[in-house]
Amino acid sequence: MLRARDEYYELTSPTILPKASGFLWNEKMMIHVNCRGYAVAQFMQPEPAKYSHAPNLEAKTFMQPEQPYYAHHPGRFVFVKDEETGELFSAPYEPVREPADSYAFIVGKSTIGWRVECKGVRVEMSLSLPKEEAMELWRIKVTNLSGKKRKLSIYPYFTVGYMSWMNQSGEYREDLQGIVCTSITPYQKYQDYDKIKTYNDKTYLLADQAPAAWEVSQEAFEGEGGIMRPSAVQEELLAKGDSRYETPLCALQYRVELDANGEQAYRFIFGPAHNDGQIADIRKRYFGDADAFAASEREYDAYIREGRGSIEIETPDADLDNFVNHWLPRQIYYHGVTNRLSTDPQTRNFLQDHMGMSYIMPQVARKSFLIALSQQKASGAMPDGIILHKDAELKYINQVPHTDHCVWLPVCLSTYLDETDDYSILDEVVPFADGEGEATVAEHIDRAMNWLLQDRDERGLNYINQGDWCDPMNMVGYKGKGVSGWLTIATAYAFNVWADICENAGRAEASQEYRQAAEKTNETVNQYFWDGEWYARGITDDNVTFGISKDKEGRIFVNPQGWSMLSGAADEEKREKLVRAVEEQLESPYGVEMLGPPYTAMREDVGRVTQKHPGSAENGAVYNHAAAFYIYALYTVGKQDNAFRLLRKMLPGPAEEDIVQRGQLPVFIPNYYRGAYRQFPRTAGRSSHLFNTGTVPWVYRILIDGLFGIQGNRDGLQVKPQLPSSWNEAKVKRTFRGAELHVEIKREAGVNATEVYVDGTLVEDGIIRQPQAGKVYQVLVKVPQTA
Amino acid sequence: MLRARDEYYELTSPTILPKASGFLWNEKMMIHVNCRGYAVAQFMQPEPAKYSHAPNLEAKTFMQPEQPYYAHHPGRFVFVKDEETGELFSAPYEPVREPADSYAFIVGKSTIGWRVECKGVRVEMSLSLPKEEAMELWRIKVTNLSGKKRKLSIYPYFTVGYMSWMNQSGEYREDLQGIVCTSITPYQKYQDYDKIKTYNDKTYLLADQAPAAWEVSQEAFEGEGGIMRPSAVQEELLAKGDSRYETPLCALQYRVELDANGEQAYRFIFGPAHNDGQIADIRKRYFGDADAFAASEREYDAYIREGRGSIEIETPDADLDNFVNHWLPRQIYYHGVTNRLSTDPQTRNFLQDHMGMSYIMPQVARKSFLIALSQQKASGAMPDGIILHKDAELKYINQVPHTDHCVWLPVCLSTYLDETDDYSILDEVVPFADGEGEATVAEHIDRAMNWLLQDRDERGLNYINQGDWCDPMNMVGYKGKGVSGWLTIATAYAFNVWADICENAGRAEASQEYRQAAEKTNETVNQYFWDGEWYARGITDDNVTFGISKDKEGRIFVNPQGWSMLSGAADEEKREKLVRAVEEQLESPYGVEMLGPPYTAMREDVGRVTQKHPGSAENGAVYNHAAAFYIYALYTVGKQDNAFRLLRKMLPGPAEEDIVQRGQLPVFIPNYYRGAYRQFPRTAGRSSHLFNTGTVPWVYRILIDGLFGIQGNRDGLQVKPQLPSSWNEAKVKRTFRGAELHVEIKREAGVNATEVYVDGTLVEDGIIRQPQAGKVYQVLVKVPQTA
Repeated sequence: MLRARDEYYELTSPTILPKASGFLWNEKMMIHVNCRGYAVAQFMQPEPAKYSHAPNLEAKTFMQPEQPYYAHHPGRFVFVKDEETGELFSAPYEPVREPADSYAFIVGKSTIGWRVECKGVRVEMSLSLPKEEAMELWRIKVTNLSGKKRKLSIYPYFTVGYMSWMNQSGEYREDLQGIVCTSITPYQKYQDYDKIKTYNDKTYLLADQAPAAWEVSQEAFEGEGGIMRPSAVQEELLAKGDSRYETPLCALQYRVELDANGEQAYRFIFGPAHNDGQIADIRKRYFGDADAFAASEREYDAYIREGRGSIEIETPDADLDNFVNHWLPRQIYYHGVTNRLSTDPQTRNFLQDHMGMSYIMPQVARKSFLIALSQQKASGAMPDGIILHKDAELKYINQVPHTDHCVWLPVCLSTYLDETDDYSILDEVVPFADGEGEATVAEHIDRAMNWLLQDRDERGLNYINQGDWCDPMNMVGYKGKGVSGWLTIATAYAFNVWADICENAGRAEASQEYRQAAEKTNETVNQYFWDGEWYARGITDDNVTFGISKDKEGRIFVNPQGWSMLSGAADEEKREKLVRAVEEQLESPYGVEMLGPPYTAMREDVGRVTQKHPGSAENGAVYNHAAAFYIYALYTVGKQDNAFRLLRKMLPGPAEEDIVQRGQLPVFIPNYYRGAYRQFPRTAGRSSHLFNTGTVPWVYRILIDGLFGIQGNRDGLQVKPQLPSSWNEAKVKRTFRGAELHVEIKREAGVNATEVYVDGTLVEDGIIRQPQAGKVYQVLVKVPQTA
Repeated sequence: MLRARDEYYELTSPTILPKASGFLWNEKMMIHVNCRGYAVAQFMQPEPAKYSHAPNLEAKTFMQPEQPYYAHHPGRFVFVKDEETGELFSAPYEPVREPADSYAFIVGKSTIGWRVECKGVRVEMSLSLPKEEAMELWRIKVTNLSGKKRKLSIYPYFTVGYMSWMNQSGEYREDLQGIVCTSITPYQKYQDYDKIKTYNDKTYLLADQAPAAWEVSQEAFEGEGGIMRPSAVQEELLAKGDSRYETPLCALQYRVELDANGEQAYRFIFGPAHNDGQIADIRKRYFGDADAFAASEREYDAYIREGRGSIEIETPDADLDNFVNHWLPRQIYYHGVTNRLSTDPQTRNFLQDHMGMSYIMPQVARKSFLIALSQQKASGAMPDGIILHKDAELKYINQVPHTDHCVWLPVCLSTYLDETDDYSILDEVVPFADGEGEATVAEHIDRAMNWLLQDRDERGLNYINQGDWCDPMNMVGYKGKGVSGWLTIATAYAFNVWADICENAGRAEASQEYRQAAEKTNETVNQYFWDGEWYARGITDDNVTFGISKDKEGRIFVNPQGWSMLSGAADEEKREKLVRAVEEQLESPYGVEMLGPPYTAMREDVGRVTQKHPGSAENGAVYNHAAAFYIYALYTVGKQDNAFRLLRKMLPGPAEEDIVQRGQLPVFIPNYYRGAYRQFPRTAGRSSHLFNTGTVPWVYRILIDGLFGIQGNRDGLQVKPQLPSSWNEAKVKRTFRGAELHVEIKREAGVNATEVYVDGTLVEDGIIRQPQAGKVYQVLVKVPQTA
């Protein structure tokens, strides 16, 4: 059913994982392609826009979890008709749904494609993108496998959909050898015209070969046959129609006679444009020179390969190896390059996404941290979103005030410093957003820490306002009194991390102050939030502590537990208790749930999170971001077996029924798996299919700082693996500050504590001191055998 | 193909008019039902909301013209499966699309239904509404016509769709004998919670009989068979599944054994609710008492029948008779009762809708005029929309300032006064909206007239700002200088109408002043807007006159032409010229187009109207509202043959190809037929399928004041018919101020001027003086023969 390769995953049936998908992107666009041929594509102008639309007027919103597909969902299909028998099928599967003799959905790093054999015909489809433009590059090849001559009609079909109620039309253009659909984005106020008039409101399909016929009206194409058996396809030729305010479509017809084993290949470009001149230019650039199209595919492949990670692993777990070596850095890279196709990413997401980029393109991370800090207020407060385009504004959830953004500054910067040792960033001078001068990065973060110190109540607990890391926890503190348990704990952690950085930077006094602030905060945390077996999640405006044992729903939240291990609030006794509580109440076959039991009704003193569907999004899902925090924390306190068990649950498989339940290829970590395992086991485990998630940089930290223990510090590389007890060995190729280290980790009899040998020599404290750029090191790590 | 009855239209094939539809409403909801089984339903809470959703996240917007349908469009279907042969079809037609042996779509006044025979089974479906609640009352009856015993499974299917990304689920409830789907409308700001928590976010289906099985997950129902051949239906029993954050559905299964001619009937209720208690209450009220359901249907029918018009006609044109007697007053009533399901109807629409109610329920019109005036500012300015609910706000186009609203006050009030002679309304005291005191209605309208007098440039031309009657003409005057030709002319007309009313009310001096203002305005109009063969549409901010002969697009607009006849600006010579120009440049087989040639590119000094699709909406469509003004104007200058020809084009038919091209049953006048007849003849004539339109009250005025000439005045009823020359006779039953007049109009040899006989006696000036309420009059009108 699923074949994993280094470079791709191959699904062999569209019906077992009907939502299985892959995605491609560049800085201008993103396309999410479903195994059945459905696709969601967005491009930036500057806000995300579509050129392939739904059949009705869609709401403009963020990407939806567990998005449903339906017959007329936008897609890219090829209908194939035998002209002699009239037999019809479509590749890859939708919309005809004719079962194929052989089917493969192939998700690669820089291409997504299919190889489908049906009724003696093989159809190969593959999609790539250019490196820098918003358009789809398609190859379609048809091969006659039937051993006899065949007369076929081939109909590439690209959804255009309901472009606009204001103006939409489309026609075939001989001069462009393609279809151009034109629309005007609806608006009512003249003030919007200046924006609208610059939009890429045209959708075009260019073909490298002239078709025999075409259809541009969805309605005319379908007729009474409908999308499953289009009437137009049952005719000898498409009607060469146009669309005048009818739903536009890009459908072409090619008629071929193929000898036995004969084949015919086509190339197409599908995308948005502003005017005909641009489309003509695209045709010239991509189809003008025989190799330009292929060169663009190669260039894109090279671009995607730039997003390499800093480790390559070889462990007893081949699925883990494949994911970590090929897919995880790709997902991190995607976040870092596209900023989630948002012009105003949430501050915490932006910082964490670039925490991840520290491993892949540290120079991009550095620049992004400086951008974020340039939007900080002189008071130290960070905004709710980081504006990345001059026309951007804070939208959706970024209009709701959250209080945690400052925490992420030292937490994310520490990874950048560990990885690069570039402490010079602390001396960079960056302005404040409110025009009140400028300061070094170090002072910016000092101010952020001081902001956290003062945005507290008389008990020393951090206000939550309308949310912290948990967006929809919006009614705990909106009256100005409620406080966040997690945020207070996270603040202690941030203080400690910043204290470490200050110390490393030679600011001993500052370091001590932050260290003390952390200790004091941890004491306060233990005074107000420890509930006996675990930490509470917060205290409401009306002074009600929640996330505690006497709550019927939302008794325990994972975040305060993990972060209390990070911050040091939890001593060993507390750690044992809370780890047990999480295991008993939150762990599921699909990972650790974010809270439990999920809320089934609105709790007005907690807020919107309690109205979310039980098991979905934040309300009891296996929310991987939170799970990753927890796993990371487990490694910091030496609970590597617990940690590894939960880490392994983030990836589907290896059991087939597990993959089926999740419904996803293991090419990305989704933001959540459906939770509420104890309440709704039927649906638990399903993937959200959303690949935007702060999880992935934390998984990298888990691997680097935790599992393989190959974290940087001021002296060099600290080697301190924490293999799960089920492993006896592992290999890691680690690129680090320009050096390459081949690390082999082995359990060895007689070893009582980890011993690190570099090129045969035992090194003190397991620290490989200042590895030289350009050099290769052989590192042997001996670890004790398990009991 | 189409059978017309007094009470209903019957369509005999779903494929010839695939978008043919009917609609039902009450004050809480509206449902627009398509002949194929698709439906769009909205209810008020207080803004329009849905309980049967699209398969994706739909944009919240106004109703769309020429709305496309698609496989998963919300609908109400019945799948029927022969349990012995496995044969399947669905009634009415979608989604299986099995051609029926016999098919009828029956659009009645208070019910919409189907009678479909397929594979030896007859399925009858009918929909009614209650008078006062938002819910659908369905009857489904299945009859065995095959002459032998049959085992059938019957699956009523009601779309629920994508309710919410925040929370959606559904399950069968034994206690309620139905399916309850639950959702929470997505929101992010806690400030929205107070509103959200009151929403009717549940969708339920209640059945009068317990089903054998059910399915509540769309995905589970369809399986790989898809919506056309659902996999679940191919099993013996539906799986009795539920929906947990999956797209919900209400599908039931009944298993019946029917003897030859055996039948089985079911009743269902489908609608929105806030909580389970309400649903239980509905079940009790409608299914508790054996006759409650039927009583509700009868009550609704009676309610709809209250919306009678004030004329019943019998003419040589049976289609016209049917439309005018049965459907036209229904459409006017719909507008008056529901206010277009808007909480902030545009001021001009609200006033004209209640101009129409003057004929049907004058007391409702009276109240509405007073509401509108209570929202006038002390300056005389009228707002862009009339707020009808305490939580309502001005939305969409009502946020864009338009300058014509004051014009409609005297124009619409005059109809109310003609019809009722209730001049007491002028003395009603009504407050101003800005808290600056109160005044009589007469003074309110004086102020409106004075506002029009002063909102002018130095030439005496009325500013257009961001629009007048034509919403998207939004860039003619947004800089504060541009003026409207139509509005200046309409102002002259408004002054004249108000002068008449003042005169009738004994305000001779005021009357004279307004009359003089009208004359002066007309002079100015002729000085600046007469282009030689017709009147210009306006003058832009940059002093460019447009809508004139030297323009390549938008050379002529119909509105200034018609209204110049109403205002008296056009003398006979000008009238002859402009009528010819309209005939030559704007008349099409489907009526008179609003402007021509339609714009094909943005003209920035005119605005958004020039970006609308050519032939759609305002840009060159047969916009029936504008066409009605023009027809009305033609009657006022005695051009009854021109007028009747254009009036007749408003209704599809009688030629079948005309009905097919328009794609609509003649049960309502749509807001437009697609225009651009000269540029795009293929699509010209298509109906927008939107039944919200200011056209219908004007059509009533055309009939009353023009065609049949039976308009009220202070003395009584002025009888002055203007039959088309092709008619030799007509009969009208006119109800008027409580009297009933049986008017028979006949051409008679030797008659040189119209002669009016009441109960045999010739009456002076054709005025039936003060007819008595409760009395019946026989009126004979002799008119000259045609030449």
